[in-house]
Amino acid sequence: MQRAFTKMHGLGNDFAVFDARAQPFTPTPAQARHIADRRRGVGCDQLILIEPSTRADAFMRIFNPDGSEAEACGNATRCVASLLGRSATIETRAGLLRTRTIDRAVRVDMGQARFGWQEVPLAYAMDTSALPVGWDGLAHPVALSMGNPHLVFIVPDVDAVDLAALGPVIEQDPLFPQRINVNIVQITSETAVRHRVWERGAGLTEACGSGACAVGAALVKRRLTHATLTVHMPGGALLIEVAEDFAVAMTGPVATAFSGVIKL
Amino acid sequence: MQRAFTKMHGLGNDFAVFDARAQPFTPTPAQARHIADRRRGVGCDQLILIEPSTRADAFMRIFNPDGSEAEACGNATRCVASLLGRSATIETRAGLLRTRTIDRAVRVDMGQARFGWQEVPLAYAMDTSALPVGWDGLAHPVALSMGNPHLVFIVPDVDAVDLAALGPVIEQDPLFPQRINVNIVQITSETAVRHRVWERGAGLTEACGSGACAVGAALVKRRLTHATLTVHMPGGALLIEVAEDFAVAMTGPVATAFSGVIKL
Repeated sequence: MQRAFTKMHGLGNDFAVFDARAQPFTPTPAQARHIADRRRGVGCDQLILIEPSTRADAFMRIFNPDGSEAEACGNATRCVASLLGRSATIETRAGLLRTRTIDRAVRVDMGQARFGWQEVPLAYAMDTSALPVGWDGLAHPVALSMGNPHLVFIVPDVDAVDLAALGPVIEQDPLFPQRINVNIVQITSETAVRHRVWERGAGLTEACGSGACAVGAALVKRRLTHATLTVHMPGGALLIEVAEDFAVAMTGPVATAFSGVIKL
Repeated sequence: MQRAFTKMHGLGNDFAVFDARAQPFTPTPAQARHIADRRRGVGCDQLILIEPSTRADAFMRIFNPDGSEAEACGNATRCVASLLGRSATIETRAGLLRTRTIDRAVRVDMGQARFGWQEVPLAYAMDTSALPVGWDGLAHPVALSMGNPHLVFIVPDVDAVDLAALGPVIEQDPLFPQRINVNIVQITSETAVRHRVWERGAGLTEACGSGACAVGAALVKRRLTHATLTVHMPGGALLIEVAEDFAVAMTGPVATAFSGVIKL
């Protein structure tokens, strides 16, 4: 069967987006693997399905290349928002997200950062604003949930950390029963930071939307930056706004690489 | 401007194929780089242009991601042949190639292997059937031209050679004024071999059509295998037939990944 798709990216985080509203479609794990294959299929970090929703303009489902489903992806949310139009509400497994598109920039209300230890979740009660633990020089991170679990380590130089080695160790520590995304951040001014991320299940990536939101919320929680800040990642920058109740909004670019049709 | 393309691969060696017969198109280096980008563009090892020819059914041009042109690519030739139909003649910078397509298998007459030292070319006269030189355990290769320059080293175990380290050193040895493709081959029977390749300008790849042809011609020259043999590469296998005059034919699969439209 022929399936139309749009290949898009947000800061180099790339997606094959299928509109499954008119023509229902759930990829099998073999199909997901094939579509994500960069030589034999379309090639992408994740597959995105736009489905009907009774509560919003659309429901967004996110499939990993192994066929498993992810709850949240900020970069994918911006891509889907730009396809849905100027102002849209998107339902996800992590909740309802309000979006606004102006040209190629998309602003997404990413919901509230949650700092309860059961909400991250952690294996047992701890002060999430500075966990009393460390891994090889990385210590006292902020732990929080942006719909998915995050740790944020404040470091003097993000390039000096061997995140490829430490990321998988921390991700799989028994302290995190649902594993965790590992963010490291370097404060360069009151309104700008440098950020690198080890994504749960994906490894080192060029940019992570929910990670950038987690970084903003963690730094405002610790009173280390302004509530509006630019988060610079290897793939590009996002503007993060943290409200008094720790609701976080993210604004950043989207781009369409090409449109295609694949036989599945 | 919108450009239609077909994304294809032969043994995992992947191409964005543009039909430039009706609508002329020569990518700028920036466009080639963008199209080859696996996250922000289409993603491919090479760009292929199908152009009009006065001598054949079409002229095939091959662009590397850096915008430079390549002379020959066996895997790309099979892909273009399958788009042109059952039986086609394709003009390339390396000469005229006759092709025959039966379902998803394509046979290509790749032309004659040439063993003259000036034809490879080497920097000075040497016996090309066993060059009296060596690099770190790799010694006495056959040197030949299949339209592009090849070395073929016969080894006891292709997996035991550190080709990622040795390939670039040999490729750029001053003995080879146009640089060279580095093939290593392990004979497993009179009709089957295992082959790995370091491609000039591209590095380690999953499969190389002209390399497989060079391997067949070199082994027949040395009388080490039958004239019809299967060459197994990491990406898959090709059937190679070497005629008495060292004309080489290659038969192997092609696949279409998807069709697309990109704005350039």
